[in-house]
Amino acid sequence: MTMTDAMRADFARCSAATLTTLLVKRGLRNTALRGVRPVNPGLPPMAGPAFTLRYIPAREDMDAYGSGGDPANIQRQAIELAPAGHVFIADCRGDPHIAGIGSILARRLRHRGLAGIVLDGGVRDTGAIAGADLPVYCSGAAAPPNYTGHHAADMNVPIACGGVAVYPGDIVFGDSEAVVVVPAHLAAEVAAEGAAMEEREAFLITEIEAGRSIVGVYPPNADTLARFDAWRRERR
Amino acid sequence: MTMTDAMRADFARCSAATLTTLLVKRGLRNTALRGVRPVNPGLPPMAGPAFTLRYIPAREDMDAYGSGGDPANIQRQAIELAPAGHVFIADCRGDPHIAGIGSILARRLRHRGLAGIVLDGGVRDTGAIAGADLPVYCSGAAAPPNYTGHHAADMNVPIACGGVAVYPGDIVFGDSEAVVVVPAHLAAEVAAEGAAMEEREAFLITEIEAGRSIVGVYPPNADTLARFDAWRRERR
Amino acid sequence: MTMTDAMRADFARCSAATLTTLLVKRGLRNTALRGVRPVNPGLPPMAGPAFTLRYIPAREDMDAYGSGGDPANIQRQAIELAPAGHVFIADCRGDPHIAGIGSILARRLRHRGLAGIVLDGGVRDTGAIAGADLPVYCSGAAAPPNYTGHHAADMNVPIACGGVAVYPGDIVFGDSEAVVVVPAHLAAEVAAEGAAMEEREAFLITEIEAGRSIVGVYPPNADTLARFDAWRRERR
Amino acid sequence: MTMTDAMRADFARCSAATLTTLLVKRGLRNTALRGVRPVNPGLPPMAGPAFTLRYIPAREDMDAYGSGGDPANIQRQAIELAPAGHVFIADCRGDPHIAGIGSILARRLRHRGLAGIVLDGGVRDTGAIAGADLPVYCSGAAAPPNYTGHHAADMNVPIACGGVAVYPGDIVFGDSEAVVVVPAHLAAEVAAEGAAMEEREAFLITEIEAGRSIVGVYPPNADTLARFDAWRRERR
Amino acid sequence: MTMTDAMRADFARCSAATLTTLLVKRGLRNTALRGVRPVNPGLPPMAGPAFTLRYIPAREDMDAYGSGGDPANIQRQAIELAPAGHVFIADCRGDPHIAGIGSILARRLRHRGLAGIVLDGGVRDTGAIAGADLPVYCSGAAAPPNYTGHHAADMNVPIACGGVAVYPGDIVFGDSEAVVVVPAHLAAEVAAEGAAMEEREAFLITEIEAGRSIVGVYPPNADTLARFDAWRRERR
Amino acid sequence: MTMTDAMRADFARCSAATLTTLLVKRGLRNTALRGVRPVNPGLPPMAGPAFTLRYIPAREDMDAYGSGGDPANIQRQAIELAPAGHVFIADCRGDPHIAGIGSILARRLRHRGLAGIVLDGGVRDTGAIAGADLPVYCSGAAAPPNYTGHHAADMNVPIACGGVAVYPGDIVFGDSEAVVVVPAHLAAEVAAEGAAMEEREAFLITEIEAGRSIVGVYPPNADTLARFDAWRRERR
Repeated sequence: MTMTDAMRADFARCSAATLTTLLVKRGLRNTALRGVRPVNPGLPPMAGPAFTLRYIPAREDMDAYGSGGDPANIQRQAIELAPAGHVFIADCRGDPHIAGIGSILARRLRHRGLAGIVLDGGVRDTGAIAGADLPVYCSGAAAPPNYTGHHAADMNVPIACGGVAVYPGDIVFGDSEAVVVVPAHLAAEVAAEGAAMEEREAFLITEIEAGRSIVGVYPPNADTLARFDAWRRERR
Repeated sequence: MTMTDAMRADFARCSAATLTTLLVKRGLRNTALRGVRPVNPGLPPMAGPAFTLRYIPAREDMDAYGSGGDPANIQRQAIELAPAGHVFIADCRGDPHIAGIGSILARRLRHRGLAGIVLDGGVRDTGAIAGADLPVYCSGAAAPPNYTGHHAADMNVPIACGGVAVYPGDIVFGDSEAVVVVPAHLAAEVAAEGAAMEEREAFLITEIEAGRSIVGVYPPNADTLARFDAWRRERR
Repeated sequence: MTMTDAMRADFARCSAATLTTLLVKRGLRNTALRGVRPVNPGLPPMAGPAFTLRYIPAREDMDAYGSGGDPANIQRQAIELAPAGHVFIADCRGDPHIAGIGSILARRLRHRGLAGIVLDGGVRDTGAIAGADLPVYCSGAAAPPNYTGHHAADMNVPIACGGVAVYPGDIVFGDSEAVVVVPAHLAAEVAAEGAAMEEREAFLITEIEAGRSIVGVYPPNADTLARFDAWRRERR
Repeated sequence: MTMTDAMRADFARCSAATLTTLLVKRGLRNTALRGVRPVNPGLPPMAGPAFTLRYIPAREDMDAYGSGGDPANIQRQAIELAPAGHVFIADCRGDPHIAGIGSILARRLRHRGLAGIVLDGGVRDTGAIAGADLPVYCSGAAAPPNYTGHHAADMNVPIACGGVAVYPGDIVFGDSEAVVVVPAHLAAEVAAEGAAMEEREAFLITEIEAGRSIVGVYPPNADTLARFDAWRRERR
Repeated sequence: MTMTDAMRADFARCSAATLTTLLVKRGLRNTALRGVRPVNPGLPPMAGPAFTLRYIPAREDMDAYGSGGDPANIQRQAIELAPAGHVFIADCRGDPHIAGIGSILARRLRHRGLAGIVLDGGVRDTGAIAGADLPVYCSGAAAPPNYTGHHAADMNVPIACGGVAVYPGDIVFGDSEAVVVVPAHLAAEVAAEGAAMEEREAFLITEIEAGRSIVGVYPPNADTLARFDAWRRERR
Repeated sequence: MTMTDAMRADFARCSAATLTTLLVKRGLRNTALRGVRPVNPGLPPMAGPAFTLRYIPAREDMDAYGSGGDPANIQRQAIELAPAGHVFIADCRGDPHIAGIGSILARRLRHRGLAGIVLDGGVRDTGAIAGADLPVYCSGAAAPPNYTGHHAADMNVPIACGGVAVYPGDIVFGDSEAVVVVPAHLAAEVAAEGAAMEEREAFLITEIEAGRSIVGVYPPNADTLARFDAWRRERR
């Protein structure tokens, strides 16, 4: 899928929390990755179509020191093939104790214009990654290299990540709190509705700060929505 | 229970670590919540009587997008009923993947004068909460809304939270390290003893820094206690 | 084992990630502690020979409030016996909910010249420890005192820590990411090779930043290694 | 709720697997208890309205050797109050290491005519219970008595059990495989549909055994359903 | 890969324990599935080439009641395509709470001549499966149907199962204890060596039963091996 | 410690459940091993003084195929040194996926007169062990050999097993339900009280079967105890 500028602008105003709400509203209850946290939470939100990598467990005769130099190595191929603007997202089977990626490959992805990296597993060189401006989400810092636990089996196939289905092209969104997968066919409408919802919640917070009870305010009744309309008009 | 000013002053000088020690001394070994961490660890310690909320698992026909607006919703009732000065503490069955509360309701509790919020489950909008001045403790950031996993079944009944029994009115204490539940009938004496113990430990650290061995110092023998008395008199 | 100045200098240039790679290269796949994180990640890397402590579960009739004052208490003996320059490392059976050590004993170890502290369990007083300059690694903050869960059974015997075998005298290395155990007989050669490898990776990052593909660069082919030689000569 | 004879007969022909299917069909995806297994799997299926007990963690000053004799003990009250025909179901917070019930209380429930016992926790005296004819489901055998980990806080309130919401009066069904909770208002229709579905699946197995492909058979197309009708008429 | 009659005969004399030993001897330490147990442990050992199925998490708009009838459903296609003599092995991401297969599909696989079924997830209808003569290995009984948690994404690709890499054509062996994956290129030699090792261990047990110490017997020294040769000659 | 005939007779009449109750009564709440189950639950209860073995994680250069033949191998030494009548109990750090022992060594222990084997880890050859008459308790069946995960570091030192402290000479008791560790100095009195308690509970069950309420019966009041005295006199 291609993200339009409008979609990018809408996603930039969304939060992971709001996106899960709007997906539940559409019947999708399992969209937020479990056990995955930002390495560099101070960056702006990330959004981009999924380019997937699928790891299976390593086998000592195939995966060893030096495997990275094999031209058949699918992880390394994927690093050079993932398209700019996409989120590089890997199925690490939730294993936090093996590094699914490290800072050199992460830098290459950043240089190639990827929008971010997500793994439901460990990442090494997290010190360097935390200081860089490419958003990386993972299960935690892990020193041992990829080939001690992982073998890249496939790229750009549907995968599991953090307990959630990820299809190539789904929009992968991340903020300081969580990563959410938005199915491709819902992305535009959910992003637009999300941006609007964030604005409304910003107003509701002013109401709460003004001392109103949540009754009639959260969720808002007609009176509150009318005040919201006025507030919104003023701000524009 | 009502906290007196003296109790508040004593608790403000305590740490979670010291409180667990004093409760073990009284035979209570299970008082520190497990799996619960501060969202905003830079705030001063929190202490207040427990106002409890009990969640059970959600059921799709009762808990759905829009449930928040139902006047029978016990979570929403609790937000408006919890008394000022109390700690709002919820049993989320240890589930870190569902948000037990978010920033709008947290703001309302802050506005109503609550002393803090504790859940053994997820919280959403943690970015906003981390920047606010109401202490919040939870199992981690979680985007999915409350009704995807929880149904509020009761308020102000005895609950489990983080593997610990919490009775309404017990004092819930939190610092940058942990949350400890102090049974109501022990709260005054434990807080007073805790404040004294913290002062003594501050002195013991000066002894360690001065190069003394821990033998006779930690725990302190009579000589050390005599030096402590002198030190304390000087400081006043 | 004694660390020479050269070894210390080499380890100071290493990272946990690189050390695990070099140990895998030598057939050792299980050298990075699992579930152990730095309390004060901003400090420089830690390296020192292991001085071990072995905890078993507490029993209420032997381990209680006041146990710390017993001259037979092996934990307290170990605090005074662990040699300067060593890393104090304890087997806490991976239990994150009990404090294996607190700030007073940690300060004494710092004063006695230890290089760091590692436990696969909880630590209390983490606020104070985070602000001190002795590296401490653990499974998380835990308020309950040692004797509520642990009994020190032995010191300076082989132990398990974070799922890894630790023999007294092995070099325990820690950085902002992880703790790695380097068997004593490999420590000098691995540290030297690690320092060299870090320098090479610093060069490879300049290549990536200059826009090169990872092919031929990571891992480096002969051309890249020739450029590395030139780069290294220039920098000296 | 009261179970009619027709409902009892229908449930007696159902399986836990089929009931979950029919509840998913109605939008309820979370109805099978997790981590709960039969102690005596050879017995016929169990079905009855839920009578609930809610445990919270024990506190040493309230829960100790001898607590069972206290007239205020809610567990003991519940044993004498749970109505015949009901399933006694307790929230043990999923703790498999503490006994939520033992053989003496189980025998009393059997004598009083209960339909079965379900706990998401441990049970003691499992040897005796396995040989008795009252169905018991739990997380495993556990020797330590109730009061070492549990305090009965409430009876006949909505609870969590095995990760599922249980409201008093919901039908709790168990077979050799699993325990499923059927909301009261759906029980009659789901049981009837389930009994019919089991009959159809018995026919489908004869088709498979006769060598047919699953295509058109599972799920069945119109031809297969016609053969099923014929088969069913013959058997009556 | 095709199994010869000799290989089948050799595997029939092997145990999972012995096969793991012989694979470790060849440098492969991760070959026994974790968390997978036999449903019908009384059957003879199972061995056959792997035919794999890969599940990812379900998404409600694609996976729902009725999905089984979709001709594009890859699980159903796999049931009809898996070749006779093979082991049907599925990646269920270790989730024990969802049924990866049930008795109707299992019967169809048996009818089609498959050698066995292995999943690192739940199975439903375990009562019926336990009584049938097709070996089934799984993580436990689970009532909820496949589509509540799984979506079949691929067949006959490399997968993870029980934490072990499984390549199509690897020999999947199971006995009453465990399931072991033998890489295709090692299968013939490992099976032959395993059958011989089992015979030797049968002899060693007679030695132990005769009262010999394990010293010189286990592992056997030259004298013991000479006695083994004599014993073996006698038995033939 | 030596067990007298009277102690053996008393323990033979006890259950794990009763022993935990009597130890809690004496202030010891952590005496039942967690995660440890009988391999051959049909055998009579096991009781004997603990002979301990302590495993730490394996390291590939010390623990490999063939390690069993090394005369310095502490596991093998322990097999030949553990005294008759004792329970061989090993600290496997709770790892269920590696075999801490197999059938050949188990047979040797049986031949040497040991009373039983307990590990908080895996056991291999469980099929053979289940059919033998030496009680074995473990965390489950595991194929991979000892040296893939364990290195025997010590024997007859205090250990952790199943989360419980075990001191050499403590009485290790096991029945079809659980394993309980009774501190040596309490063993005689607890066994005697346990045997008496079992007799009383046998009587209480006759009361329950006769239709009495638990009130006044469980726990028994003076009337019930009087009936118990009469019942006991009759039976003798």
